[in-house]
Amino acid sequence: MSVLIPVLSRTPNLLPELVKALPSVKFHKVTDPEVDIHFKKSEILICDFDLLGPYLYDLPSAKWVQGTWAGIDKLTPLIQKEKQLPYQITRFTGEHFGRIMSEYVVANIVNHERNFFQVRSNQDKQEWNRHGKITGYRVISDLTTGILGLGNIGSRIGKTLYALGATVLAFGRRPALPDGNEYSHVSNYYTKETLPLFLKECDYIINVLPKTDETDGILDNDVLENSAEKKSVLINIGRSNVISEESIIKALDNNWISAAILDVYDVEPLPQNNPLWKMKQVFLTPHVAGMSRAKDIADQFQKNLDLYNKKVPLPGLIDFNRGY
Amino acid sequence: MSVLIPVLSRTPNLLPELVKALPSVKFHKVTDPEVDIHFKKSEILICDFDLLGPYLYDLPSAKWVQGTWAGIDKLTPLIQKEKQLPYQITRFTGEHFGRIMSEYVVANIVNHERNFFQVRSNQDKQEWNRHGKITGYRVISDLTTGILGLGNIGSRIGKTLYALGATVLAFGRRPALPDGNEYSHVSNYYTKETLPLFLKECDYIINVLPKTDETDGILDNDVLENSAEKKSVLINIGRSNVISEESIIKALDNNWISAAILDVYDVEPLPQNNPLWKMKQVFLTPHVAGMSRAKDIADQFQKNLDLYNKKVPLPGLIDFNRGY
Repeated sequence: MSVLIPVLSRTPNLLPELVKALPSVKFHKVTDPEVDIHFKKSEILICDFDLLGPYLYDLPSAKWVQGTWAGIDKLTPLIQKEKQLPYQITRFTGEHFGRIMSEYVVANIVNHERNFFQVRSNQDKQEWNRHGKITGYRVISDLTTGILGLGNIGSRIGKTLYALGATVLAFGRRPALPDGNEYSHVSNYYTKETLPLFLKECDYIINVLPKTDETDGILDNDVLENSAEKKSVLINIGRSNVISEESIIKALDNNWISAAILDVYDVEPLPQNNPLWKMKQVFLTPHVAGMSRAKDIADQFQKNLDLYNKKVPLPGLIDFNRGY
Repeated sequence: MSVLIPVLSRTPNLLPELVKALPSVKFHKVTDPEVDIHFKKSEILICDFDLLGPYLYDLPSAKWVQGTWAGIDKLTPLIQKEKQLPYQITRFTGEHFGRIMSEYVVANIVNHERNFFQVRSNQDKQEWNRHGKITGYRVISDLTTGILGLGNIGSRIGKTLYALGATVLAFGRRPALPDGNEYSHVSNYYTKETLPLFLKECDYIINVLPKTDETDGILDNDVLENSAEKKSVLINIGRSNVISEESIIKALDNNWISAAILDVYDVEPLPQNNPLWKMKQVFLTPHVAGMSRAKDIADQFQKNLDLYNKKVPLPGLIDFNRGY
């Protein structure tokens, strides 16, 4: 193949990584899509979704756009229902992304269970302190972890926690779990109708659902009261639409949940006056749980390009009707 | 079996957990071994090694002592070479212990790679900061992790890191890795002769070696200079005898290693005037990486008792000549 593939992305180091992965392919960094002579003429493109947005219906030659993000909520509002896109778009997702977010989840569970932030602050005071959770901790095999979201990412997080000994529950929109090995790590499966039962069981509630109309506010309306007995910890590394910040604060204040580990917010950067900043039982990370890393994008693009050339269906193909 | 099993241990909650695991067995909590009528008359005992020490050669009826610790360095100095112990002692180790320490290792690697302690301190300042490692982090699959120690614990840590995508190297005293699946996660194996080569490769140097004459000071004498290119991170959750605190500080000061995550010390509690407390690139935990948890001890004792009754060799049997 001697085509030229425009790359419209802010991901640091993406071009060199693509060249390293596919030395025989010509890549071209697009700085201004308006004036770029290749951007609108190419069959295959690689784009950040927010940068692709303005040109979504203005790529007459495109057959396939490989995205660099997992979430498509910057594209969804731009989709015109009656206007079929003349090309396919694939999300950046899969193995790498799921692994990266799994590491975030595991580290944060261990940090929370063993009070590592407290240990660190004891160190600042030169204090050898073995009280409470620092020695009397739970380990992952003691825990029931519930994952909201059945996709690649949710599945990988579940498998990782299962391998570390956790009991894994899953919540999704499908009426039942698909057969086969893909979900053999899941002990019990729940849907919207059985959400309260799911929440009653979880030591950790881990959200990786995509932002869609269906997922809007599913943890709102005091449903977290079901977690009061377990005093669950909420980890949100999906999208902030599943629960309002007011609902999180209410659940913490009422001790329905004992802690929250948050990576996604209604407004980012999180405004300085947001009360979450000051809550001791909250750990806030600045939307970094799963970064789109150049090396991983290049790796996935390499695999997808091979499938594309073989005319095999691409993984991560977006269905805008479904919402992800 | 209707024997009575004395339990001499400080592990909180151990008796109820033993009763839960083995309701048909009679356990007996020993408070003062000197006056206890069962302690010296029993065939099977469960003991913390430091508490067992004074009675090591004074248990005429004992056939098996199940320990509650992994490390036997409180017993080793008491062993008289010409005097064969008339009973067997098993260490507490195996699956649980390896899992617990694996969690410690994984969390600390992720914390270090993603600068989570910095993120936490940014939160205290209400600062949305995505600089440096907070976004530009390495993930476990980018890393080469070297484990010193081939036992249950080292093997489990290696398998866990391998499952998360790391390249895993191993260092041990055996001339070569045993055949078979147990070490299929290990890419390369090193011994004392090839230690510098091992250190050159490691992003993380993870020590779980037992304290023996052979392991004394193996990371001393500036051998960590071999890590200067990789700027390795040292994680010591084994015993402090492998490297002096002076050597750690020198390696950090010379930037041979970029950080140290330490759980074991020459003197515990670590004295207030120890310079390690104040070093920013060091994370100190108060000997908590792998706690002997009541539930896990009970679980292991249950399995071992079954093997004992079947006259099958017990896992974790101590060989004082070998040193573990």
